[in-house]
Amino acid sequence: MQRIVLKFGGTSVGSIEKIQNVAKIIKKKHDEGNKIVVVVSAMSGVTTDLLNKSKLISKNFDPKELDVLLSSGEQISSSLLAAAILNLGINSRSWLGWQIPIVTNDNHTTSQILKIKTAEILKFISSGGVAVVAGFQGITENERITTLGRGGSDLSAVAIAKFFETDSCEIYTDVEGVLTTDPNMYEKAKKIDKISYEEMLEMASLGAKVMQPIAVQASMIDDIPVHVRSTFSNKSGTKIVSDEDINHKKAVTGIAYSKNNAKVSIVGVIDKPGVAADIFEPIGENNINIDMVIQNTSLDGKIANITFTIKQEDLKETLSIIEKNKQKINYEKIIHNEKLAKVSIVGAGMTTSPGVTHKMFRSLANEKINILAISTSEIKISVLIQQDLTQKAVKILHEAFKLN
Amino acid sequence: MQRIVLKFGGTSVGSIEKIQNVAKIIKKKHDEGNKIVVVVSAMSGVTTDLLNKSKLISKNFDPKELDVLLSSGEQISSSLLAAAILNLGINSRSWLGWQIPIVTNDNHTTSQILKIKTAEILKFISSGGVAVVAGFQGITENERITTLGRGGSDLSAVAIAKFFETDSCEIYTDVEGVLTTDPNMYEKAKKIDKISYEEMLEMASLGAKVMQPIAVQASMIDDIPVHVRSTFSNKSGTKIVSDEDINHKKAVTGIAYSKNNAKVSIVGVIDKPGVAADIFEPIGENNINIDMVIQNTSLDGKIANITFTIKQEDLKETLSIIEKNKQKINYEKIIHNEKLAKVSIVGAGMTTSPGVTHKMFRSLANEKINILAISTSEIKISVLIQQDLTQKAVKILHEAFKLN
Repeated sequence: MQRIVLKFGGTSVGSIEKIQNVAKIIKKKHDEGNKIVVVVSAMSGVTTDLLNKSKLISKNFDPKELDVLLSSGEQISSSLLAAAILNLGINSRSWLGWQIPIVTNDNHTTSQILKIKTAEILKFISSGGVAVVAGFQGITENERITTLGRGGSDLSAVAIAKFFETDSCEIYTDVEGVLTTDPNMYEKAKKIDKISYEEMLEMASLGAKVMQPIAVQASMIDDIPVHVRSTFSNKSGTKIVSDEDINHKKAVTGIAYSKNNAKVSIVGVIDKPGVAADIFEPIGENNINIDMVIQNTSLDGKIANITFTIKQEDLKETLSIIEKNKQKINYEKIIHNEKLAKVSIVGAGMTTSPGVTHKMFRSLANEKINILAISTSEIKISVLIQQDLTQKAVKILHEAFKLN
Repeated sequence: MQRIVLKFGGTSVGSIEKIQNVAKIIKKKHDEGNKIVVVVSAMSGVTTDLLNKSKLISKNFDPKELDVLLSSGEQISSSLLAAAILNLGINSRSWLGWQIPIVTNDNHTTSQILKIKTAEILKFISSGGVAVVAGFQGITENERITTLGRGGSDLSAVAIAKFFETDSCEIYTDVEGVLTTDPNMYEKAKKIDKISYEEMLEMASLGAKVMQPIAVQASMIDDIPVHVRSTFSNKSGTKIVSDEDINHKKAVTGIAYSKNNAKVSIVGVIDKPGVAADIFEPIGENNINIDMVIQNTSLDGKIANITFTIKQEDLKETLSIIEKNKQKINYEKIIHNEKLAKVSIVGAGMTTSPGVTHKMFRSLANEKINILAISTSEIKISVLIQQDLTQKAVKILHEAFKLN
């Protein structure tokens, strides 16, 4: 007999029929003798609808009241699901964040879980009941409702797995797991059976639909193995586990990409301490995210070129910020490229596989795909290319690293 | 400086625009120097939508979970309204039933309020904040969410007026107050400025849209004066007060009616103890409401005729129940009439005005309206007539008792 957490996302409980289907999945797990805590998201579309209502009231809607508003979505789905389970003849009840309680700090709309009281629910599931916990929500020490931000219900599930010391944590969603790449990009994308926390984080562009990066990070910190799987099939999904639990036979686990990037090169900057800060500080202050940064120093060490990438939509504002600071930065000229894509190979195995880097570059070169910039991490190599070559590059790399 | 309760119904907060309008009404009251507790219903349509969802899950949806589900409606409206008030520069926050707490018994879906903690909210409104309380909801001693049934938010408002010892209780709704009769029946219907609790209860057929009878009863028990008025105009509405506070100049306050009644007469019943119970017990057990009951004893005291009225829709089932019990009841025959209406004159003043009864009957007789049954209470006289004569009867009585 195992103690397990089952988390169901918004699309899994997106209609009354789907809620009844989820109740059947839970009944099966219950009949197998498991002690079950369920975590449930709001029905798909509900949170967006509530957010839209809040925006009509005010663009600066009070965050404390926003948490009261948004938490109603999981209140609805948890009570509907508990009733649907009861209807199958299994004892069940819903618990809202404040009833458990799930105590968080008071960073309203993006709170962190501090502790979860377990006694009442442990007693309930030990006597054969299925506990249905409203995801995404908690309360402060002062009994104000909080929410955990995007991916919040995944965070609730991981935290419950931790505090209840469960044997497993299953995240049910509308895809069959994490794939080697986006199947819309390359139809031979394959499901990955096991992936490390770190790889999953680097695969964010592919994995975000599966599990929010912040929840992956939380499971990594406490080493909670997570099984991501489909609500709509019986197949095993992807297990997200510690790197030690993976036998890396392949150097590369998956191919990620992101489109709509722009590259900005500031040419002829006087190379002195603080110049990078002078460039990036005003950009950051305008809430523009910098992705890759590459700095080439000139041969004489006096003049440098600084290149970075941003989202396409931020290009115009970024250029104007730099021009406004021309005197302070002291540069020769700015060059920029638009409509670029970042394609990355991700794999914890590449640290022990020599030749991955040159294999990637050679494969792209053979197909005349020009590399505009490169950045690397321990388990990832990213290249910047022309956007219209994305699909071609993904296919080539998928084949080169034998992911088919 | 007064302490006041303002309650807004579902149609008053039925859209974002309407919520912002309500925030402006509150701001005006606040700027006049009042200490304000607001009680708010769910946005119109929301509770019905949630109820429909529950019915799709199960016809026997667990009442505890139903309360969790339904209470989300007021959670949404209270947070939206608090944020809208904040947006006008006035400090405000929402309180859910469990946060105050409003403690109820555990009759889920129709709970009664036992006590309300006032300290935190009193402190908040004393420092100039507007407290927005989610109506319709409370919690049990065991911290399970409860709801108060139909008219629940009116009950919340009256209970808050009681426990907070407020100077007034204003119920904002989508009509201008209680009228002398239904304006769809007779266009010269007039707003009543003051009405007693008892009259209001007797006027239920007219007043239900204004304030739920159960909430009128609660305000009567604790003698909480209530001012029912329109959210959409500045005009004064109807004050529902103790009978002592009314100077009854007129014998009749209003004309009520209800349509779709049916009359059943059981003729030739042996008049012995227990016969009425034998007739009405099986009907009541089938959840059929009996309205008027009239028993005529025969001259010799041995044979009686028993007549009663029910809703048209219950007629078929009622007849079949009686026929099933023919042997036990022991009667001669059943006569029934369909498509009848009950028209009532209501007025606390009639106890001191002789001749009201004969004036009513004479007015109807002059217009050839036949009376099929009569029943009276201290402050009401009801007659049963052919349904197609309802409008004519209302008009005649409205004029006869000078309500124009």
